[in-house]
Amino acid sequence: MEADAAKLIGAGIACIGMGGAGVGLGSLFGHFLEGALRNPAAADGQFGRLIFGFAVTEALGIFSLLIALLLIFAV
Amino acid sequence: MEADAAKLIGAGIACIGMGGAGVGLGSLFGHFLEGALRNPAAADGQFGRLIFGFAVTEALGIFSLLIALLLIFAV
Amino acid sequence: MEADAAKLIGAGIACIGMGGAGVGLGSLFGHFLEGALRNPAAADGQFGRLIFGFAVTEALGIFSLLIALLLIFAV
Repeated sequence: MEADAAKLIGAGIACIGMGGAGVGLGSLFGHFLEGALRNPAAADGQFGRLIFGFAVTEALGIFSLLIALLLIFAV
Repeated sequence: MEADAAKLIGAGIACIGMGGAGVGLGSLFGHFLEGALRNPAAADGQFGRLIFGFAVTEALGIFSLLIALLLIFAV
Repeated sequence: MEADAAKLIGAGIACIGMGGAGVGLGSLFGHFLEGALRNPAAADGQFGRLIFGFAVTEALGIFSLLIALLLIFAV
Protein backbone atom coordinates (compact mmCIF):
# COMPACT_ATOMS: atom_id res chain seq x y z
CA MET A 1 0.00 0.00 0.00
CA GLU A 2 1.32 3.49 -0.80
CA ALA A 3 1.55 6.26 1.80
CA ASP A 4 -1.09 8.24 -0.13
CA ALA A 5 -3.57 5.45 0.48
CA ALA A 6 -2.53 4.64 4.03
CA LYS A 7 -3.00 8.19 5.33
CA LEU A 8 -6.64 8.12 4.27
CA ILE A 9 -7.26 4.87 6.12
CA GLY A 10 -5.42 6.30 9.14
CA ALA A 11 -7.59 9.42 9.10
CA GLY A 12 -10.71 7.29 9.15
CA ILE A 13 -9.46 5.15 12.02
CA ALA A 14 -8.55 8.29 14.01
CA CYS A 15 -12.25 9.17 14.12
CA ILE A 16 -12.85 6.20 16.44
CA GLY A 17 -11.18 8.37 19.08
CA MET A 18 -13.89 10.97 18.58
CA GLY A 19 -16.44 8.22 19.11
CA GLY A 20 -14.92 7.35 22.47
CA ALA A 21 -14.97 11.00 23.57
CA GLY A 22 -18.62 11.06 22.51
CA VAL A 23 -19.41 8.10 24.77
CA GLY A 24 -17.67 9.91 27.62
CA LEU A 25 -19.53 13.18 27.06
CA GLY A 26 -22.83 11.35 26.98
CA SER A 27 -22.02 9.64 30.28
CA LEU A 28 -20.89 12.96 31.80
CA PHE A 29 -23.98 14.95 30.88
CA GLY A 30 -26.28 12.02 31.54
CA HIS A 31 -25.08 11.58 35.12
CA PHE A 32 -25.14 15.35 35.67
CA LEU A 33 -28.73 15.57 34.50
CA GLU A 34 -29.73 12.59 36.61
CA GLY A 35 -28.34 14.35 39.68
CA ALA A 36 -29.72 17.74 38.66
CA LEU A 37 -33.23 16.33 38.31
CA ARG A 38 -32.97 14.80 41.75
CA ASN A 39 -31.74 18.06 43.32
CA PRO A 40 -32.42 20.95 40.92
CA ALA A 41 -31.54 23.63 43.49
CA ALA A 42 -27.87 22.53 43.51
CA ALA A 43 -27.46 22.26 39.75
CA ASP A 44 -26.34 25.84 39.19
CA GLY A 45 -23.58 25.50 41.81
CA GLN A 46 -22.03 22.51 39.98
CA PHE A 47 -22.24 24.11 36.55
CA GLY A 48 -18.59 25.21 36.57
CA ARG A 49 -17.38 21.65 37.18
CA LEU A 50 -19.71 20.37 34.47
CA ILE A 51 -18.13 22.77 31.98
CA PHE A 52 -14.60 21.84 33.16
CA GLY A 53 -15.29 18.12 32.71
CA PHE A 54 -16.92 18.78 29.35
CA ALA A 55 -13.92 20.83 28.15
CA VAL A 56 -11.25 18.24 28.99
CA THR A 57 -13.31 15.35 27.58
CA GLU A 58 -14.15 17.24 24.39
CA ALA A 59 -10.44 18.07 24.08
CA LEU A 60 -9.59 14.38 23.56
CA GLY A 61 -12.11 14.23 20.71
CA ILE A 62 -10.66 17.40 19.21
CA PHE A 63 -7.15 15.88 19.42
CA SER A 64 -8.41 12.91 17.40
CA LEU A 65 -9.93 15.33 14.87
CA LEU A 66 -6.57 17.15 14.74
CA ILE A 67 -4.72 13.91 13.95
CA ALA A 68 -7.31 13.04 11.27
CA LEU A 69 -6.94 16.47 9.64
CA LEU A 70 -3.12 16.28 9.89
CA LEU A 71 -3.20 12.89 8.16
CA ILE A 72 -5.42 14.17 5.33
CA PHE A 73 -3.91 17.59 4.69
CA ALA A 74 -0.47 17.91 6.31
CA VAL A 75 1.29 14.61 5.63
CA MET B 1 3.31 -2.10 2.71
CA GLU B 2 6.13 0.42 3.16
CA ALA B 3 7.01 1.95 6.54
CA ASP B 4 5.97 5.39 5.23
CA ALA B 5 2.46 4.08 4.76
CA ALA B 6 2.30 1.99 7.91
CA LYS B 7 3.18 4.84 10.25
CA LEU B 8 0.19 6.84 9.01
CA ILE B 9 -2.19 3.96 9.67
CA GLY B 10 -0.53 3.50 13.08
CA ALA B 11 -1.08 7.16 13.95
CA GLY B 12 -4.78 6.81 13.22
CA ILE B 13 -5.08 3.66 15.33
CA ALA B 14 -3.31 5.40 18.23
CA CYS B 15 -6.23 7.84 18.44
CA ILE B 16 -8.45 4.99 19.67
CA GLY B 17 -6.48 5.30 22.92
CA MET B 18 -7.67 8.91 23.22
CA GLY B 19 -11.20 7.68 22.76
CA GLY B 20 -10.85 5.29 25.69
CA ALA B 21 -9.50 8.05 27.91
CA GLY B 22 -12.48 10.15 26.84
CA VAL B 23 -14.89 7.43 27.98
CA GLY B 24 -13.06 7.31 31.31
CA LEU B 25 -13.12 11.08 31.83
CA GLY B 26 -16.82 11.24 31.07
CA SER B 27 -17.54 8.48 33.58
CA LEU B 28 -15.32 10.15 36.19
CA PHE B 29 -16.87 13.62 35.95
CA GLY B 30 -20.36 12.22 35.48
CA HIS B 31 -20.27 10.20 38.68
CA PHE B 32 -18.67 13.09 40.56
CA LEU B 33 -21.39 15.47 39.48
CA GLU B 34 -24.13 13.00 40.31
CA GLY B 35 -22.70 12.69 43.84
CA ALA B 36 -22.05 16.42 44.14
CA LEU B 37 -25.66 17.20 43.30
CA ARG B 38 -26.84 14.75 45.93
CA ASN B 39 -24.56 16.28 48.59
CA PRO B 40 -23.32 19.68 47.39
CA ALA B 41 -21.82 20.60 50.77
CA ALA B 42 -19.18 17.84 50.45
CA ALA B 43 -18.25 18.54 46.84
CA ASP B 44 -15.50 21.05 47.61
CA GLY B 45 -13.80 18.58 49.98
CA GLN B 46 -13.51 15.93 47.22
CA PHE B 47 -12.35 18.36 44.56
CA GLY B 48 -8.67 17.49 45.02
CA ARG B 49 -9.35 13.81 44.33
CA LEU B 50 -11.44 14.74 41.29
CA ILE B 51 -8.48 16.67 39.88
CA PHE B 52 -6.06 13.83 40.71
CA GLY B 53 -8.27 11.29 38.95
CA PHE B 54 -8.72 13.65 36.03
CA ALA B 55 -4.96 14.20 35.69
CA VAL B 56 -3.97 10.52 35.60
CA THR B 57 -6.82 9.62 33.21
CA GLU B 58 -6.11 12.52 30.87
CA ALA B 59 -2.43 11.51 30.94
CA LEU B 60 -3.25 8.22 29.21
CA GLY B 61 -5.01 10.13 26.42
CA ILE B 62 -2.06 12.50 26.08
CA PHE B 63 0.30 9.48 25.86
CA SER B 64 -1.77 8.22 22.92
CA LEU B 65 -1.59 11.65 21.30
CA LEU B 66 2.18 11.60 21.85
CA ILE B 67 2.50 8.24 20.10
CA ALA B 68 0.32 9.47 17.21
CA LEU B 69 2.45 12.61 16.78
CA LEU B 70 5.67 10.58 17.08
CA LEU B 71 4.45 8.23 14.36
CA ILE B 72 3.54 11.09 12.01
CA PHE B 73 6.47 13.42 12.54
CA ALA B 74 9.35 11.65 14.32
CA VAL B 75 9.59 8.19 12.72
CA MET C 1 4.31 -6.26 4.61
CA GLU C 2 7.84 -5.61 5.85
CA ALA C 3 8.78 -5.66 9.53
CA ASP C 4 9.67 -1.96 9.35
CA ALA C 5 6.09 -1.21 8.42
CA ALA C 6 4.41 -3.69 10.72
CA LYS C 7 6.06 -2.37 13.89
CA LEU C 8 4.61 1.10 13.26
CA ILE C 9 1.10 -0.27 12.88
CA GLY C 10 1.71 -2.33 16.01
CA ALA C 11 2.68 0.80 17.96
CA GLY C 12 -0.63 2.38 17.05
CA ILE C 13 -2.61 -0.70 18.04
CA ALA C 14 -0.80 -0.79 21.41
CA CYS C 15 -2.40 2.58 22.25
CA ILE C 16 -5.81 0.88 22.40
CA GLY C 17 -4.54 -0.64 25.66
CA MET C 18 -4.07 2.87 27.07
CA GLY C 19 -7.63 3.63 26.08
CA GLY C 20 -8.92 0.65 28.01
CA ALA C 21 -6.94 1.66 31.09
CA GLY C 22 -8.46 5.14 30.72
CA VAL C 23 -11.98 3.69 30.78
CA GLY C 24 -11.08 1.76 33.91
CA LEU C 25 -9.53 4.74 35.71
CA GLY C 26 -12.53 6.93 34.95
CA SER C 27 -14.91 4.30 36.29
CA LEU C 28 -12.70 3.77 39.36
CA PHE C 29 -12.45 7.44 40.36
CA GLY C 30 -16.02 8.17 39.33
CA HIS C 31 -17.49 5.49 41.57
CA PHE C 32 -15.16 6.44 44.43
CA LEU C 33 -16.20 10.08 44.24
CA GLU C 34 -19.89 9.20 44.01
CA GLY C 35 -19.54 7.12 47.18
CA ALA C 36 -17.32 9.67 48.91
CA LEU C 37 -19.88 12.41 48.36
CA ARG C 38 -22.61 10.21 49.81
CA ASN C 39 -20.52 9.53 52.94
CA PRO C 40 -17.67 12.09 53.09
CA ALA C 41 -16.57 11.13 56.60
CA ALA C 42 -15.47 7.67 55.39
CA ALA C 43 -13.64 8.86 52.28
CA ASP C 44 -10.26 9.44 53.93
CA GLY C 45 -10.26 5.90 55.36
CA GLN C 46 -10.63 4.41 51.85
CA PHE C 47 -8.05 6.66 50.22
CA GLY C 48 -5.27 4.07 50.43
CA ARG C 49 -7.38 1.54 48.52
CA LEU C 50 -8.24 4.17 45.93
CA ILE C 51 -4.53 4.78 45.34
CA PHE C 52 -3.82 1.03 45.18
CA GLY C 53 -6.58 0.53 42.59
CA PHE C 54 -5.35 3.56 40.68
CA ALA C 55 -1.74 2.32 40.65
CA VAL C 56 -2.51 -1.15 39.29
CA THR C 57 -4.92 0.25 36.66
CA GLU C 58 -2.56 2.99 35.53
CA ALA C 59 0.24 0.41 35.35
CA LEU C 60 -1.58 -1.41 32.55
CA GLY C 61 -1.77 1.82 30.55
CA ILE C 62 1.92 2.49 31.16
CA PHE C 63 2.77 -1.04 30.00
CA SER C 64 0.94 -0.30 26.74
CA LEU C 65 2.87 2.94 26.37
CA LEU C 66 6.10 1.04 27.00
CA ILE C 67 5.29 -1.49 24.28
CA ALA C 68 4.38 1.32 21.85
CA LEU C 69 7.69 3.11 22.53
CA LEU C 70 9.63 -0.16 22.29
CA LEU C 71 8.02 -0.90 18.92
CA ILE C 72 8.88 2.54 17.56
CA PHE C 73 12.40 3.00 18.91
CA ALA C 74 13.88 -0.30 20.12
CA VAL C 75 12.84 -2.94 17.55
